[in-house]
Amino acid sequence: VLLRVRLVGICDTDLHLSRGYMGFRGIPGHEFVGETESGDRFTAEINCSCHACPTCRAGMPNHCPSRTVLGILGHDGAMAEWVAVPQANLHPIPPAMPDEIAVFAEPLAAAYRVPEQIVLSGERVAVLGDGKLGLLCAWVARAVGARTTLVGKHPEKLRLAGEGIEAVELGVADSLARSFDIVIEATGNPTGLETALRLVRPAGTVVLKTTMTEPHTLALAPLVIDEIRLLGSRCGPFPPALRALQTGDVDIRPLIQAEYPLEDGIEAFRAAGSPGARKVLLRP
Amino acid sequence: VLLRVRLVGICDTDLHLSRGYMGFRGIPGHEFVGETESGDRFTAEINCSCHACPTCRAGMPNHCPSRTVLGILGHDGAMAEWVAVPQANLHPIPPAMPDEIAVFAEPLAAAYRVPEQIVLSGERVAVLGDGKLGLLCAWVARAVGARTTLVGKHPEKLRLAGEGIEAVELGVADSLARSFDIVIEATGNPTGLETALRLVRPAGTVVLKTTMTEPHTLALAPLVIDEIRLLGSRCGPFPPALRALQTGDVDIRPLIQAEYPLEDGIEAFRAAGSPGARKVLLRP
Repeated sequence: VLLRVRLVGICDTDLHLSRGYMGFRGIPGHEFVGETESGDRFTAEINCSCHACPTCRAGMPNHCPSRTVLGILGHDGAMAEWVAVPQANLHPIPPAMPDEIAVFAEPLAAAYRVPEQIVLSGERVAVLGDGKLGLLCAWVARAVGARTTLVGKHPEKLRLAGEGIEAVELGVADSLARSFDIVIEATGNPTGLETALRLVRPAGTVVLKTTMTEPHTLALAPLVIDEIRLLGSRCGPFPPALRALQTGDVDIRPLIQAEYPLEDGIEAFRAAGSPGARKVLLRP
Repeated sequence: VLLRVRLVGICDTDLHLSRGYMGFRGIPGHEFVGETESGDRFTAEINCSCHACPTCRAGMPNHCPSRTVLGILGHDGAMAEWVAVPQANLHPIPPAMPDEIAVFAEPLAAAYRVPEQIVLSGERVAVLGDGKLGLLCAWVARAVGARTTLVGKHPEKLRLAGEGIEAVELGVADSLARSFDIVIEATGNPTGLETALRLVRPAGTVVLKTTMTEPHTLALAPLVIDEIRLLGSRCGPFPPALRALQTGDVDIRPLIQAEYPLEDGIEAFRAAGSPGARKVLLRP
């Protein structure tokens, strides 16, 4: 399906790709809102799977070995006037939802992957990292009933967490060592995993959302001695994300920093890559 | 309870301790058979817990923060004429079971920790490492009904696996990439984890039995991209281990290399540390 792009977000993965990650060549952009010729608005899942191989038939199309990934792997993305996506990947956008809300469906779905993998409700959950992904994960944890703590370095970002989330500066968090059932690592920084291993209780779970683009030196003895479970987590389900955006269970508006026209993309990437940047959007 | 030591095994952990791991000072030895003054034989769990703290009361005494560990942490072990252990840690040894079988209860219990953490039955399970721990894990996997493959470097050790286990040399295992539901890493070598991440299927589980005593450089991107679950695994339940030793479900006899008198302990440690060594036992 060919969609006219209405709005597209710049993700940290796009910044990594622009520096050579995955060796991607082509058009980036995997968080977007587009419309058909008849004016219907859609967003889309980013994994384009074969739906025929054993992995797909085992119910894991996001892990299809011959998949392409929109704007990341072998498939042009949405930082353009038009984008082509498989029909099976489309999700309609509710009529009343503004583009600048709907464009968060993909990153919010990634945060909703965590409660799809592990029960958060009622658990003591720490989210490490007060960037965009960290805030989304903390809001999802709160929405599904976790006792949620957000741990970060930036007081002005920790303030975005809002009611019902305990926001803690990283230095203070040492007093919380070994006190969380689940720690969601979303710092974007390889050292985040070590902090996570310090905060989680014995036999607890660390969910790793940060894609480590480089090999990293790590002491793994605590993982064995304390029998920690470490869980990689990537793309997630769109329906709960769109539902939470619609009901307001998750209000992403504090995350929007700026909108640029597509032709100012270079400048927009620079803004998105500056320290402390929130979400930068591009409108073709 | 004071026990007269009848037989004690040398574990790879003892070799690490003798090189400075954990900074342990005292009498090592945590795999043993002892007897009371009345002649009753016992083996014992190694974690000496307070049974009062929140961690103990949450059913995780093996993770008690104030625990001592027999022959490893703050508690003299069994490489001596006598050893003192908490009564709660004792497990009686069935009358007909020879000492040299019963002395494997502790390491076999560690292997039985895996099916306590994750269902192995019916799953495609690869065990990495053809050393003592690897063989014990493979035998436990087979005993609980897993489709078991043992991957190792030593043809003569792979042959010990026996019927019902597919034994594969490491070089050949590359053709098995991404084909196992569960990979149990028991190589004792930090590079084993990378091999494990290659062999496990997307969204599969890697069980880490090797205690990484040193920080290690590792590419963790596959863990996130393929959503692998990494599970630390340490001490396990004695009852199924003693049962398997009694029924013959696990026959550990191929693992016994030699028995030394306790006074030849230095020589015995040298033998236990030589390449390809199997289990070396000490008799006081």
